[in-house]
Amino acid sequence: MKKKLLLVFVCLSVLWGANAQELANFMRRAPIVSPEIGEKIVTFRVAAPDAKLVRLYGSWMPDRNSSVNMMKDTAGVWTISIPTPSPELYTYHFIVDGIVVNDSRNVFMQRDGTRYLSVLLVPGELTENYYEAGEHGNLSKVWYDSPTIGTNRRMFVYTPYGYETSGEEYPVLYLLHGGGGDEDAWSTMGRARQILDNLIEKGLAKPMICVMPNGNPGQQAAKTQLLEEKSYDRRDPEFANLYVKSLVNDIIPYIESHYRVIAKPEARAISGLSMGGGHTLAATSLFPGTFDYICPLSMGVRGEAAEVDKQLQAVKKGGYKLYWLGCGESDFVWEMAKNLDAALTRNEMEHTFYVTDGGHTWANWRKYLNTFAPLLFK
Amino acid sequence: MKKKLLLVFVCLSVLWGANAQELANFMRRAPIVSPEIGEKIVTFRVAAPDAKLVRLYGSWMPDRNSSVNMMKDTAGVWTISIPTPSPELYTYHFIVDGIVVNDSRNVFMQRDGTRYLSVLLVPGELTENYYEAGEHGNLSKVWYDSPTIGTNRRMFVYTPYGYETSGEEYPVLYLLHGGGGDEDAWSTMGRARQILDNLIEKGLAKPMICVMPNGNPGQQAAKTQLLEEKSYDRRDPEFANLYVKSLVNDIIPYIESHYRVIAKPEARAISGLSMGGGHTLAATSLFPGTFDYICPLSMGVRGEAAEVDKQLQAVKKGGYKLYWLGCGESDFVWEMAKNLDAALTRNEMEHTFYVTDGGHTWANWRKYLNTFAPLLFK
Repeated sequence: MKKKLLLVFVCLSVLWGANAQELANFMRRAPIVSPEIGEKIVTFRVAAPDAKLVRLYGSWMPDRNSSVNMMKDTAGVWTISIPTPSPELYTYHFIVDGIVVNDSRNVFMQRDGTRYLSVLLVPGELTENYYEAGEHGNLSKVWYDSPTIGTNRRMFVYTPYGYETSGEEYPVLYLLHGGGGDEDAWSTMGRARQILDNLIEKGLAKPMICVMPNGNPGQQAAKTQLLEEKSYDRRDPEFANLYVKSLVNDIIPYIESHYRVIAKPEARAISGLSMGGGHTLAATSLFPGTFDYICPLSMGVRGEAAEVDKQLQAVKKGGYKLYWLGCGESDFVWEMAKNLDAALTRNEMEHTFYVTDGGHTWANWRKYLNTFAPLLFK
Repeated sequence: MKKKLLLVFVCLSVLWGANAQELANFMRRAPIVSPEIGEKIVTFRVAAPDAKLVRLYGSWMPDRNSSVNMMKDTAGVWTISIPTPSPELYTYHFIVDGIVVNDSRNVFMQRDGTRYLSVLLVPGELTENYYEAGEHGNLSKVWYDSPTIGTNRRMFVYTPYGYETSGEEYPVLYLLHGGGGDEDAWSTMGRARQILDNLIEKGLAKPMICVMPNGNPGQQAAKTQLLEEKSYDRRDPEFANLYVKSLVNDIIPYIESHYRVIAKPEARAISGLSMGGGHTLAATSLFPGTFDYICPLSMGVRGEAAEVDKQLQAVKKGGYKLYWLGCGESDFVWEMAKNLDAALTRNEMEHTFYVTDGGHTWANWRKYLNTFAPLLFK
């Protein structure tokens, strides 16, 4: 008898377990799969019966003009198969009669600043740490008070697998986003949780906490939260360091009082990309001796050598264990990064200048995190 | 001298603080704002210079055929202004020459199952708890082992404002999603964090933890995580209750050993929508006496009265403090909900049948959570 009521639940599960889109596809008996990732070929599909021209653009192409025409079948589905790009996390879109359209068949979409982008993740050695590991750390959206900025703000905090029960104290990586980004960026476009999970699981990186704050002091949180934003005069030099001061004076004390961490310079790392690389330089020169691991990415210096040297001497005097600078040779800050490399050499500061192909891209920033994280806290 | 290096950072901030889209708009000197929400009028805009016909569809319209034509200006931007719909959280899209397109100017997008939808949140009394409160609880993506299902799985856990430092023990609401949804659904489409934050801040609801698991036992986590899914025979009755058993035997023990909670029936509530309402019915009849607060939403019963009565008598014998059933009069499960209401009455079980307009919608489920949460743990 129990079975009959159970059967009702089963039927309901069947009914509502399939979502509307799946039901619609079932009914037309031709499920559109996109992207379909094969070892040699990737196929993209989009239904657009009335369109005259549908093109595909993907971030593996050299530029926007490289987009390629898709072909329409009799059912009005446009298709293209291309050689599988080399392993990487790409974004792509369709251009339907001139309109940029995401891939509605692809549930893997990420926000990059104000834009949502369909994602193509191609498996391979380079990307193996961008997939879910077997053991997952937890990611929390944490609100904290920032007396420095004067608002309650949001940051993302990653705690490694086992944190809850180990009883151990952990080192902390403060990982900063770039311009146009927010506290969400490193854990989505940056795959920071997956990268750290994988490196830790493989025994390549020390288990660590990773703190991803919001580096825009006018915001309490990402724009998605619909909170009012403070306007400010970006030309005011005081403003530029407001966030850096809040990082050291508000965020670090919050983390060190709310999490089981080692509250010492040798257990603090700081890294950031682009604007966050600027924040990394500013934080380490304004607060020398706070972070023993310093990893600016896609950033550098310009301006008077004497002033740069003064800043770096402060860092040197404060002491550090690792200075790791990553930049791509076609990055528009390449000259600045070279300047920083030269300045570090001139100041007799041990450092690594990790040079890659490519430019100011998430492809590089993921690669840098994947490369320097194993060097931290050792 | 320090100022010069600072100035570099400021310039860089200016440079990268504006994202590509903003820069593009700045350059054309006509930023496209969409949606622009006024008290009386909402305006939607989409750039589509080559399109022949652009229409707007929004979930405030009675059906898909109600979509309305937009007008093109000389710059190729299609616009429409409509009377502001009554306060609610709506989803909408453009139809550009037959293609469904999200609003690329609107950063507020949410995933509903496999689809990403642009969101229009209209302010008003009904929706005031759907916005960020002044005091925010934290939301964590937590991985736990499920021996019942045999995999490591993900759930979302909300901890109320002040949890970290209060030292107090909290009651727990287990909040279950429907078919096609996953652990992400209640905190995005359902606005559960904002609703609980607001109710708690206003003193209307008791501070509580809210646990939002993944109710699809074939999944470890939402499809966005790209994890392999187990296939299973949905017609197998054993399967239907697998998740319900994991909820009581795996998730509750995890929560009660990892969080500062009151581990007693009077501090446990269970609610779910649609399929999650079915899970609520199953969990309370299979494990009577576990939850003192029982709130199935958009769900009910059918089948033999004797069998239903047997299940409900088990719940009655186990004891409970609140039985709160919510359903809309045009919901397709309305008859089943009425059956459950009648069965509860027939079994002399005190309960509330909370009847609303509308159907099987997030609009209703948000409203139900906002209405029953203040009744819990009192």
